[in-house]
Amino acid sequence: MAEILKGAPAAAALTEELKARAEALREKGTVPTLAILRVGERPDDLSYERGALKRCEKAGIEVKRFLLPEDVTESELLKTIDMVNADPGIHGCLMFRPLPDKAMEKAACARLLPEKDVDCMTEGSLGGVFTGSGTGYPPCTAEACMELLRFYGISLKGKNVTVIGRSLVIGKPVSMMLQAAHATVTMCHTRTRDMAAVCRNAEILVCAAGHAGLVTKDFIRPGQVVIDVGINVDENGNLCGDVAFEEAAGIAGMITPVPGGVGSVTTAVLAKHVIEAAEKRA
Amino acid sequence: MAEILKGAPAAAALTEELKARAEALREKGTVPTLAILRVGERPDDLSYERGALKRCEKAGIEVKRFLLPEDVTESELLKTIDMVNADPGIHGCLMFRPLPDKAMEKAACARLLPEKDVDCMTEGSLGGVFTGSGTGYPPCTAEACMELLRFYGISLKGKNVTVIGRSLVIGKPVSMMLQAAHATVTMCHTRTRDMAAVCRNAEILVCAAGHAGLVTKDFIRPGQVVIDVGINVDENGNLCGDVAFEEAAGIAGMITPVPGGVGSVTTAVLAKHVIEAAEKRA
Repeated sequence: MAEILKGAPAAAALTEELKARAEALREKGTVPTLAILRVGERPDDLSYERGALKRCEKAGIEVKRFLLPEDVTESELLKTIDMVNADPGIHGCLMFRPLPDKAMEKAACARLLPEKDVDCMTEGSLGGVFTGSGTGYPPCTAEACMELLRFYGISLKGKNVTVIGRSLVIGKPVSMMLQAAHATVTMCHTRTRDMAAVCRNAEILVCAAGHAGLVTKDFIRPGQVVIDVGINVDENGNLCGDVAFEEAAGIAGMITPVPGGVGSVTTAVLAKHVIEAAEKRA
Repeated sequence: MAEILKGAPAAAALTEELKARAEALREKGTVPTLAILRVGERPDDLSYERGALKRCEKAGIEVKRFLLPEDVTESELLKTIDMVNADPGIHGCLMFRPLPDKAMEKAACARLLPEKDVDCMTEGSLGGVFTGSGTGYPPCTAEACMELLRFYGISLKGKNVTVIGRSLVIGKPVSMMLQAAHATVTMCHTRTRDMAAVCRNAEILVCAAGHAGLVTKDFIRPGQVVIDVGINVDENGNLCGDVAFEEAAGIAGMITPVPGGVGSVTTAVLAKHVIEAAEKRA
């Protein structure tokens, strides 16, 4: 049976470190502050928001919430982002996505100042992940994978890592971050032929497809580290990842659960970005 | 013996198409124009410049050259880029790199308008290659690999492609372009373990390491398509690629020569970007 890599201890360790840094900032007169911008009342957003509020409280970060109705106009939304941009007391901004209106989402993402873009909404931040220039911050979930690997002492240098999924939120950025950590990365997606064989070839497998049960035992080899980034709902209405957990855990060396794995680290990474943004400003 | 994929026919076919588009632009009163900005007199730059001038002439593109001394100051260089930016008659700008001064190079790259950035100097264009947003143009050499594959009818969808090298000029952008064409891409680099085995696993191998003779017969499997992007000088002072050509050609299915392969397509891609930029403006 594989070792279960839970997210909570990694998140707790990171939060402890952030708390000390937040205190140091407060002593210098800076209160690290996150703006949360939510349009409508989607249950997913509300759930993530509760987690973020709790995490920020533990880390010593203030949160200002900007709540807009589902039928907000583009100009109202942009005006809110302009307020966030103009407020020197706000160090980072999380806006829940997707928005109902894609064009509005694009305009809103482009409007945020790069230095407040703590969850990689802007194209400049995404470009920074690709070029390694240090512009902006990577997407929190992608970086949560890296934090989890680091916390459990799993080295990446020279390792064969396969990533399933090529979204801009996880697949593509985590591939570049793994490469920057000197892994040899293979990027799989819906058009990949014999995905099971490609995945079996990997020492570390990062699953970010968003399809429950996609990753069966045929994808797994003994000793493999399996990082499950999928968040899906199964036929019984329960949260599950991309990996058929029971059968994979019978073969792999280490595996993250869903829920309780990567997802538990995401808000801690968000808090880290807010602290970093506040430190840069202070 | 592998089929030799020469660049010249691909470049010639593309140039013919561009010529027709340039004529159409001229009929509408737009003369597609490239600015070449050269600092100093490096032999490599002069050689590429001669090729670019010839290609642009064939494609019906005007070239304006801006030649600056090797000891140019940053403010003079930026002033020149401002002139290029301000001139509505100039559609694209090629600046030879690297410059002697890294900081100056960075400042110059950041100054160029994205819509004139026909060789992916700016971080915005690089970000566009990563996100697929359509901002700017990809690096000419990376796109030359794609043109060559297209010209010889080599499909990419679902193919296992391995890229050696992770530079921002070739390795990283060509990896993203191959992925966008639905290949399953593996990215190798200096820290990759058993690179020969990883490369042998590929149906298409793109070599952009910049090390003569790195890719020996152990990297090649029967039927493989080998794209050699390296430009190196061997012990006899002759141009050569990354691939030990004779031994690889004895095993591979198709292979590009150096010189005469990818490099011959690069200036045609540059010309294509200038025409595209002019068409967007017209």
